[in-house]
Amino acid sequence: MTTKSGSFELPKILSQIKGPEDVKALPAEQLDNLCEEIRHTLIHSLSRTGGHLGPNLGVVELTLAMHRVFDSPEDKFLFDVSHQGYVHKMLTGRADTIHTIRTPGGLNGFLLRTESEHDCYGAGHAGTCLSAALGMASARDLKGDSNHVVAVAGDAAFTCGPTLEAMNNIEETTKKFIVVLNDNEWSIDRNVGAMAKYFNALQTHPTFSSVRNKAAEFVGKVGGETARKFVHKVERNTKNLILPNVLFEKFGLRYYGPIDGHDLPLLIRTFEHLKQQEEPVILHIITEKGRGYQPALANPGKFHGLGTYKVEDGSTAAADKPTYSELFGRAVTDFAKEDKSITAITAAMPGGTKLEIFKKELPERYFDVGIAEEHAALFACGHATQGLRPFLAIYSTFMQRAIDMIIHDIALQNLPVRMCMDRGGLSGDDGPTHHGLFDIAYLSAIPGLIHMQPKDEEEFIDMLWTMANYDDGPTAIRYPRGAGIGAKPKDKPVLLEIGKGEVLQDGSDIAVIALGHMYETALETVKELEAQGHSVALINPRFIKPLDAELITRYAEKCNVVLTMEDHVLQNGFGASVIELLNDRNIDTPLERIGWPDEFIDHGKVEELREKHGLTAAHAVSQVNKHL
Amino acid sequence: MTTKSGSFELPKILSQIKGPEDVKALPAEQLDNLCEEIRHTLIHSLSRTGGHLGPNLGVVELTLAMHRVFDSPEDKFLFDVSHQGYVHKMLTGRADTIHTIRTPGGLNGFLLRTESEHDCYGAGHAGTCLSAALGMASARDLKGDSNHVVAVAGDAAFTCGPTLEAMNNIEETTKKFIVVLNDNEWSIDRNVGAMAKYFNALQTHPTFSSVRNKAAEFVGKVGGETARKFVHKVERNTKNLILPNVLFEKFGLRYYGPIDGHDLPLLIRTFEHLKQQEEPVILHIITEKGRGYQPALANPGKFHGLGTYKVEDGSTAAADKPTYSELFGRAVTDFAKEDKSITAITAAMPGGTKLEIFKKELPERYFDVGIAEEHAALFACGHATQGLRPFLAIYSTFMQRAIDMIIHDIALQNLPVRMCMDRGGLSGDDGPTHHGLFDIAYLSAIPGLIHMQPKDEEEFIDMLWTMANYDDGPTAIRYPRGAGIGAKPKDKPVLLEIGKGEVLQDGSDIAVIALGHMYETALETVKELEAQGHSVALINPRFIKPLDAELITRYAEKCNVVLTMEDHVLQNGFGASVIELLNDRNIDTPLERIGWPDEFIDHGKVEELREKHGLTAAHAVSQVNKHL
Repeated sequence: MTTKSGSFELPKILSQIKGPEDVKALPAEQLDNLCEEIRHTLIHSLSRTGGHLGPNLGVVELTLAMHRVFDSPEDKFLFDVSHQGYVHKMLTGRADTIHTIRTPGGLNGFLLRTESEHDCYGAGHAGTCLSAALGMASARDLKGDSNHVVAVAGDAAFTCGPTLEAMNNIEETTKKFIVVLNDNEWSIDRNVGAMAKYFNALQTHPTFSSVRNKAAEFVGKVGGETARKFVHKVERNTKNLILPNVLFEKFGLRYYGPIDGHDLPLLIRTFEHLKQQEEPVILHIITEKGRGYQPALANPGKFHGLGTYKVEDGSTAAADKPTYSELFGRAVTDFAKEDKSITAITAAMPGGTKLEIFKKELPERYFDVGIAEEHAALFACGHATQGLRPFLAIYSTFMQRAIDMIIHDIALQNLPVRMCMDRGGLSGDDGPTHHGLFDIAYLSAIPGLIHMQPKDEEEFIDMLWTMANYDDGPTAIRYPRGAGIGAKPKDKPVLLEIGKGEVLQDGSDIAVIALGHMYETALETVKELEAQGHSVALINPRFIKPLDAELITRYAEKCNVVLTMEDHVLQNGFGASVIELLNDRNIDTPLERIGWPDEFIDHGKVEELREKHGLTAAHAVSQVNKHL
Repeated sequence: MTTKSGSFELPKILSQIKGPEDVKALPAEQLDNLCEEIRHTLIHSLSRTGGHLGPNLGVVELTLAMHRVFDSPEDKFLFDVSHQGYVHKMLTGRADTIHTIRTPGGLNGFLLRTESEHDCYGAGHAGTCLSAALGMASARDLKGDSNHVVAVAGDAAFTCGPTLEAMNNIEETTKKFIVVLNDNEWSIDRNVGAMAKYFNALQTHPTFSSVRNKAAEFVGKVGGETARKFVHKVERNTKNLILPNVLFEKFGLRYYGPIDGHDLPLLIRTFEHLKQQEEPVILHIITEKGRGYQPALANPGKFHGLGTYKVEDGSTAAADKPTYSELFGRAVTDFAKEDKSITAITAAMPGGTKLEIFKKELPERYFDVGIAEEHAALFACGHATQGLRPFLAIYSTFMQRAIDMIIHDIALQNLPVRMCMDRGGLSGDDGPTHHGLFDIAYLSAIPGLIHMQPKDEEEFIDMLWTMANYDDGPTAIRYPRGAGIGAKPKDKPVLLEIGKGEVLQDGSDIAVIALGHMYETALETVKELEAQGHSVALINPRFIKPLDAELITRYAEKCNVVLTMEDHVLQNGFGASVIELLNDRNIDTPLERIGWPDEFIDHGKVEELREKHGLTAAHAVSQVNKHL
């Protein structure tokens, strides 16, 4: 693979694959080589862009088999979360642009209906594919069509409410439906819940011979801890097994498997058989996350999704500053060591939220409930009713799953659940499914809820400490992905007064009210405005709700222009709350807002996207100048 | 039972029950009489206030047995949805105020933590109780306490994502946990999904002898269709049964039952046994909705929850005008008869949404997915991707469950799903768990989504027709509970222009912009302001998003005051969008807003609550006058 002015020269066979018809036309004896070429391309290409390497290395044979047997786009392929869709992209005319994945203007890291006719359903959140696929199957039946619908979901998706709701509806909805359970659980460090345990038990069933027989081979080829864990799992749990398929069959799905998800001829034969069935079926395949790349096999958590790395050893650049997530995990764990009432709850994100620190040091008070945000929020309510102090750590974008619980259970009952929303603001590379740009809009209308955002790391820890000690009702905090400016936390955090902002700098011409990490851009803005000769006040509001009405009113009355800045959509955002406040107080000082427009924001580099949409000091200055 | 100045004289035994200790102290031979007294009180009291009669008549013995065996409030009782909590209220010191239920200032129709120490968890939405109870059990284990946690959930709750997410977590969370599956499915007209079918199969298991043997008795006592259906169900499905309890046991719950949920001694004995178990258990009981009241047995759907009725025959006053729900069900069915691409999806609410009309006339295109709003929304996406035109009918308050799907699946993919949100606005008697006061806040920030609200029934049908014919993206409509002003729909509906409001009356001093059914109050307001000598414009905005910016701007520039009116919270509501618009256009005409304040609104009569919170013409006039 040679680099050609930033792009790749694709390997021989892959370079000829322009679409599924080429996959079908390929002589069978070349398929193994194609798999190898795909893996090679993934490993090298993603080393430069970053991306979901492990999951895609795991589904090379699966995706190839699907395109050999079925006819996309007439047959519909849905991939749950769709971060494992790169191979599908490569086989459907996008091999020559796979090197652009997640880069500005390049391929999206997930499936997108607008990117290809072969992407019949987009996703970035888990657990949606069975339901959407069922809707497609139902539409097909109503229209009298005969195409197939194939829904591919990982084992983790079965911890998820919508998946389970869909399962409950399959039997009554259609007679022609194919679910692929892509089970790579054995490469993750811990089972979550009864479903995971059940899948484990299935793996040990006698019919699972083809994989079991290859266990020794795996150890030989792969070596190390991963392979040993696999063999161990194959041997255990057999005693729990009574009727392996009864759970799925209770849900009206005929169960097939488990089979080796890397045995391409077996996959092809099995799909040919499943195509003929006139009842909903589930095919349980066992795959290895990271297959074919030793560093990914050795560290499946890290290689699930990551930035750039060195191909030779999988090493990544060391960070110079701790991320907000790391500071969060460390701080809450430290608080909990002193306060036995603190508990930590995550929805399958110990690594992402860095609650893995808490898990390691205080395992009894750590709860990973699976990809189950609704249950997580309700479970936190249960803790809060009994005098515990639960920290509920869920990314801003995934907290969207729990809004009903925030309204109906947490806020209505005024329960002191601490909602910690990582990735509040633009997420960057991951794109629109992952941007945390709506949480102010969906939280601000909820009565009694306290919502805050820190300007830097030091204030972040003070806010978490304030939340830990606030028992009078629900609190929420949003903080950005990645590292901040490097502000060192105090030795001992301090309590912040609820609803009180901070005057960072006094001034009388322009009041800049910058929410959270917009602080940096605000500093630049202030500097430029001062250079123009204006007296500029800089306010850190700290609280989105309740607003510091007194402080904001005072500066709005004193200054000639108010400027709000936020990493959130403008509509119903922080600035919108300030506008409501000023309106209700009959203050007509002009107010300009910096934030994201009323459209879904693409993936890309944060800086470039900010530039494009005007979240910059230059744009802020020009907006303010309109009023001066 | 005699009426005493609006209250009831309670029957003899019940009048002595001041709390659970009195339940325990009661001689066993008086328990049957107490059950009868409770039923008598429920039937007579609710005939005057309305309420959830059927569900409460079904749980008399269950609730009594729980209070005989366990010790509330140390032991925690959670009731899913909690509309079946009236008996619990009567046994925990609230028998003498049960006649005030759902009336202004009276008992809430659901459980409320603020109402009694025995209400350890409130609810009004389904599927929350297993998760919250699990949180309480976990807290108990962490604290080293020994109390019991008993979660009572109906069969319908098991179609619901959060319940299933909780099931997946029970085994890993605690060893001491009691779930009561209150299965009254046989009195509802149709099974939804695999779980319901599974429960059915359980009912026919040989151990279910005590109920089965009583089948003949039921027919004798009860008579009619209900009893015959029951006997029929007892006999069928046996062939489906392999291992009755394997599904629950896969989820780590030891299964007990099914037993007759009206056999009080059996319930007491069983709970005494379950108390001793050191593993999570599920007790499956079979109950009759409406037990002891012939009209409720004959018509369980109607008596699930209703307004006032005549005790003698269960008759209710005939409505003089069709409700919005009825108009909706009729209109969408009529549209669908002409347009084969229209489908209708409900989440267990065929009666409430009146999609029962669609179900009856076009069953193939009608989908009831159970209490599964997330799946419902995703299933609608599946339909929309295949060129169908799905109508997704979910109450405003329950749509909160599907917000992530609205953002991540519907809007991001720009799928033309038609979201029909009944009960948009204050719900009245049902109280804060059911008010539809947040949907503008949670929808307005979502890019590309069209949201509207009709001023009357005629416009409602035009809007539904407009949605039916709009294929370019998602549309949503909110409409109120109950009947409107009686505006007769056109013979043939007309298409409305997207984003265009309507000038109902021109004027130059004051611009009244009244959203949806606030139209009536706006008319009064206009009349009063005109009587004061002002020239008043009356605008029907029709669209919440996109706003008719041109129209609103024009009137805001022309008039001295703008008044917005909405049946929604003010924060991030319709008026807030108007304020944002005027701010961004630098228009500083004073704007006053009428709507709900930033607090949870109690249950009560709509008119009284509007009076209390200023959603009246008088208040509107006084607000406007501040600026004149």
